[in-house]
Amino acid sequence: MPSPSTTIRPRSAAEIGNWDYEADVVVAGYGVAGAAAAVEAARAGADVLVLERTGGWGGAAALAGGFLYLGGGTPIQKACGFEDSAENMHAFLRAAMGPGADENRLADYCTNSVEHFEWLVGCGVPFKPSFYGEPGWEPPGDDGLMYTGGENAYPFTRIATPAPRGHVPQMLDKRTGEKGGGYMLMKPLVDTAASLGVRSAYDMRVQCLVIEADGRVVGVVAKQYGKEVTVRARRGVVLATGSFAYNEEMVAQYAPRINGRPAASVEEHDGQAIRMAQALGADLAHMDATEVAIFVDPQLIVRGILVNGRGQRYVAEDTYPGRVGQLTLYQQDNEAFLVIDAEAHEEAMGRPSATPELLRPPTWVCESVAELEHEMGLPSGSLQATVAAYNDGAARGEDALLHKKPEWLRPIGSPIGAIDLRGHTGGFTLGGLRTTLDAEVVHVSGEPIPGLFAAGRSTFGLAAWGYASGISLGDSSFYGRRAGRSAAKG
Amino acid sequence: MPSPSTTIRPRSAAEIGNWDYEADVVVAGYGVAGAAAAVEAARAGADVLVLERTGGWGGAAALAGGFLYLGGGTPIQKACGFEDSAENMHAFLRAAMGPGADENRLADYCTNSVEHFEWLVGCGVPFKPSFYGEPGWEPPGDDGLMYTGGENAYPFTRIATPAPRGHVPQMLDKRTGEKGGGYMLMKPLVDTAASLGVRSAYDMRVQCLVIEADGRVVGVVAKQYGKEVTVRARRGVVLATGSFAYNEEMVAQYAPRINGRPAASVEEHDGQAIRMAQALGADLAHMDATEVAIFVDPQLIVRGILVNGRGQRYVAEDTYPGRVGQLTLYQQDNEAFLVIDAEAHEEAMGRPSATPELLRPPTWVCESVAELEHEMGLPSGSLQATVAAYNDGAARGEDALLHKKPEWLRPIGSPIGAIDLRGHTGGFTLGGLRTTLDAEVVHVSGEPIPGLFAAGRSTFGLAAWGYASGISLGDSSFYGRRAGRSAAKG
Repeated sequence: MPSPSTTIRPRSAAEIGNWDYEADVVVAGYGVAGAAAAVEAARAGADVLVLERTGGWGGAAALAGGFLYLGGGTPIQKACGFEDSAENMHAFLRAAMGPGADENRLADYCTNSVEHFEWLVGCGVPFKPSFYGEPGWEPPGDDGLMYTGGENAYPFTRIATPAPRGHVPQMLDKRTGEKGGGYMLMKPLVDTAASLGVRSAYDMRVQCLVIEADGRVVGVVAKQYGKEVTVRARRGVVLATGSFAYNEEMVAQYAPRINGRPAASVEEHDGQAIRMAQALGADLAHMDATEVAIFVDPQLIVRGILVNGRGQRYVAEDTYPGRVGQLTLYQQDNEAFLVIDAEAHEEAMGRPSATPELLRPPTWVCESVAELEHEMGLPSGSLQATVAAYNDGAARGEDALLHKKPEWLRPIGSPIGAIDLRGHTGGFTLGGLRTTLDAEVVHVSGEPIPGLFAAGRSTFGLAAWGYASGISLGDSSFYGRRAGRSAAKG
Repeated sequence: MPSPSTTIRPRSAAEIGNWDYEADVVVAGYGVAGAAAAVEAARAGADVLVLERTGGWGGAAALAGGFLYLGGGTPIQKACGFEDSAENMHAFLRAAMGPGADENRLADYCTNSVEHFEWLVGCGVPFKPSFYGEPGWEPPGDDGLMYTGGENAYPFTRIATPAPRGHVPQMLDKRTGEKGGGYMLMKPLVDTAASLGVRSAYDMRVQCLVIEADGRVVGVVAKQYGKEVTVRARRGVVLATGSFAYNEEMVAQYAPRINGRPAASVEEHDGQAIRMAQALGADLAHMDATEVAIFVDPQLIVRGILVNGRGQRYVAEDTYPGRVGQLTLYQQDNEAFLVIDAEAHEEAMGRPSATPELLRPPTWVCESVAELEHEMGLPSGSLQATVAAYNDGAARGEDALLHKKPEWLRPIGSPIGAIDLRGHTGGFTLGGLRTTLDAEVVHVSGEPIPGLFAAGRSTFGLAAWGYASGISLGDSSFYGRRAGRSAAKG
């Protein structure tokens, strides 16, 4: 029955005689969006089958640090002494996720964020009510809460009351175990799904969607161990196969700045679900948006000054390092240098860090700023003026230019060094299928495609341009649940 | 026969009894891409019908300044004393149109640029062999050649030998007539098409494509005077209806930074052709790319210094003003100020300009830089350091930071003013349907969609991110020809 060559084009249900598999709801991809969808579809009474391309569940989520961006007054925020509200969270995200972020989606997410936290806890995801306040990409231990979006740094301090919203599931001891926060998110979700009778099939690569004559999606064609199999979805199909960060052609078409530099992604993130749905006329959104990491430890960043290729500062160094990454890649042509004196460098090296491999040595070390400027190849006088202005303010405890917090201001002395960060960024794509708040995939006509739902990084999410760590696992699990519920309704 | 509600979804040819119109090649849109397609399809022996939504031909092209970006040694370049080659042109475009510009497309365009110039001349488009060397958006008179991409400014001077490539058709006297370069491009093309027997129908809004059971495009459905009509295309359909700059929803999804600020566009640029083809599974590319104008005369820009919201310079002020616009919108959060002293301002006001309405007065005037910095609300010390460094170099004829050419360097004196340019940008979208070099529309499967061709701003073009004036009329006419030839082959 399967034709020898599968393509991404939809197959007609009329051509399919016997289905190899059947379920009410078929979920493609067993990462966090797929797991959340499976749980909710099963709870709604659907018989659920998850198709996973690799040999096991987890996806990119299980390998991630595990942050979920949640707020509005979660029990963890309260236990750690932070006040927050849905409105305050929305005000921050409006400023930090745009331009172009979807107001309705942000409001939806913020309003229901505490409920989503409770849902995760109800599935068995453990959160420890302890706050980690050091600069870093993630906590080195098992603390459950951290600033992960620059909420407590300029300019966002002027827009919303700072509250940390990076919630990380309590991990096993990293020094002895191998399981991080992402695993501790995925394991309970998959266990919950299994306890609800969710079935899963591995080594299943989805190829194309199957549609009725009226356009309704009623199944998928997949390849299992190289052989084509057909999977009937009696109520709906949920696409949750991740981003297109590893599809070089799509990256070149849509997000060329991260070409050749995928990060925090898995190779399976090849955009397949996006392509399959586009072949049905599905619409896209925010395809140029990407998360961007900069590969240096925030313990160093905060103690130095970041300058661009013109020797100018451009970002408060005590902000979220992902914001530093985005501003570097998109606004500074991927050219950045961290200027830091020997004393501050040494101090940073002695601080706790979850990413000690990013505590990097200086590329250059000189006795004077003039000498360093010359060694770095910066325009004559540029770095000298920048350091002079910074030091002048730092001596008074002020950063008039970028408002780094006084606790991090200290004049830069000698010997002075710099870490070359040119090209030291990478990231994953944030754009994808356009969906409704009920996770229905939207056709370019503006109408939902019957029977087709999606969540996770194969869809556009909360971030249209900016980012905060935890947004992806956050909106993927949140809208994964919606997708499962919607698909179960059929 | 027509159903009461038309949608963007493809219609089946089997449902259509009698076609209201028929031709070998049906072209949607009578702007520059459509006109070029019509001419070449007719020359290839096809019976051609052009459907235009408005009451007459012209599109955005007829209202434009009329630049065509051409080079590699055109007769106009040679007559004006400039050397150029396809390789040199390619080297410039590679640096200026990216990141993400398509190497093969750039090579194709550069290699065939002189031939394309000859083709335009052969259609009767007049070019005067005279060079306009003043800063400006376009020549105030009828000069035929100008720098329109920053080829003669940093950083491109270090990448390719400067050559002007903005070719503008010789216009009627602007002071007496109303017809600019764009009209003088369109009129001869439309006359040529008419002489070849090309038919046209007006007030025809294309609604959706018509396909055979095998997916081949065989026609379009349009609305004419509010009534649905069907148009059969025996060999092929060419989509050439322009950009999506006026489709607010699409702009929000794909290019949110220009939301609410369309420029150099017509209201008909609503993305209809893109949507119609997406509904068939057509792929897209570079949807976030936009041209960006900054609304101030280059005679002013070049005589001052541009600073961002941190009081820092970020672009050589003697470059192409569209580059200033792009860097301002994308890299400086749409915050820019032009700092200029009274003497330079007065001098600029007395210079020739094609856009005298952009010779704007200063927003603030002060006696000292410190006072101006305060009035502008810039960080304390920031503008003072910037002006001091600029003046120091200018006194020596050097701009170490951005390499503005010595002829434009003069210390900024007192009284000193600034023009507030925050938010003073606008533009049009450069992304669209993905096409082959033969202007076939590409399905997400990677295969061309049979019978469907496209050119102009409903397709992605040469510019993936950067821009130069003339790129749009250039690649629209160039690939419009390809579309016409490909469609005539069927």
